[in-house]
Amino acid sequence: MYASEALKARILQDGRNLGNGILKVDGFINHQVDARLMMQVGYALAARFASLPITKVLTAEISGIAPAVMTAMALDVPVVYARKHKPITMPERTYIASAPSHTKGGDVTLMVSPEWLRPADKVLIVDDFLASGQTIRALVDLVQQAGAELMGIAAVIEKAFEGGRANFADLHVPIETLVTITSMENGRIVFA
Amino acid sequence: MYASEALKARILQDGRNLGNGILKVDGFINHQVDARLMMQVGYALAARFASLPITKVLTAEISGIAPAVMTAMALDVPVVYARKHKPITMPERTYIASAPSHTKGGDVTLMVSPEWLRPADKVLIVDDFLASGQTIRALVDLVQQAGAELMGIAAVIEKAFEGGRANFADLHVPIETLVTITSMENGRIVFA
Repeated sequence: MYASEALKARILQDGRNLGNGILKVDGFINHQVDARLMMQVGYALAARFASLPITKVLTAEISGIAPAVMTAMALDVPVVYARKHKPITMPERTYIASAPSHTKGGDVTLMVSPEWLRPADKVLIVDDFLASGQTIRALVDLVQQAGAELMGIAAVIEKAFEGGRANFADLHVPIETLVTITSMENGRIVFA
Repeated sequence: MYASEALKARILQDGRNLGNGILKVDGFINHQVDARLMMQVGYALAARFASLPITKVLTAEISGIAPAVMTAMALDVPVVYARKHKPITMPERTYIASAPSHTKGGDVTLMVSPEWLRPADKVLIVDDFLASGQTIRALVDLVQQAGAELMGIAAVIEKAFEGGRANFADLHVPIETLVTITSMENGRIVFA
């Protein structure tokens, strides 16, 4: 089965519409991860960008890590995950961007060490969701701070009703998502 | 090349001994991840436990996720990452354990939803480092709270000089690590 079809079937089977546009997928994408499904997802996303000379995948901890690692494996490039807390192994000066947090309120800070994002890098951003696009916007900001080149944006699931995609039209890069949800009203999950 | 040999070579090439027993591996294991190397690591760790009827891999966010996802993929079982912050998709009641944090001071709390760790589960714990063993001890605690069965403990790199392995002798489960570092004194990195 194609990854996108497998994913839709899984969302209908195990996903839960919690209302307010919140889709619970913590049985197979975050918290508990279906590693084989994520591998399929990674290969499917990589295939959409196979013609581009990507040198690095960039994601945000935590939920982006599994799909991004698999996409990076498929593209045979390293993956960098922007960190929310500075570990002691990170240098003093880092690239920093912030995005509003859905789950905690306030802003979340994303940091990348200049060691791992270079001006020569051609970057594919990968995240679990493309919703309002604010986390991805922060990742784009990090790419720009590094002077690297953004090659594209990929997400596993797009919540089209949050309109995030339109925020990136100015970037003129391909945006690919495996599954598009157009509505979550009345407890339903409607695919494009 | 065997995963353990590839890993040793990579540690010597790109790892940095920051002193006080801190090994900087954020160019290939955490922050930036060499996805292909992690896949090798995952298959190598899985092979050590191939004879056991494991149903689930358990790790802790964040650095454990990449090697744990790859190990789970190789074993063809789901992977659960214990969360440090409760997302809105997590139920009220969770299993909770805490471990001292090296990087932030104080304690870090690890949470797992009872939905994804069940009494019937046979669990392999996977983490990036086995050092003092305190994070892994918290994961063991979560397995016990769930009434699940601990089948083994795996880590990518063991800092034998921190003595963590001895803390788990009472559990009578196999403990496997791919690379063992016996000393980081005087700026050196000495393998077993």
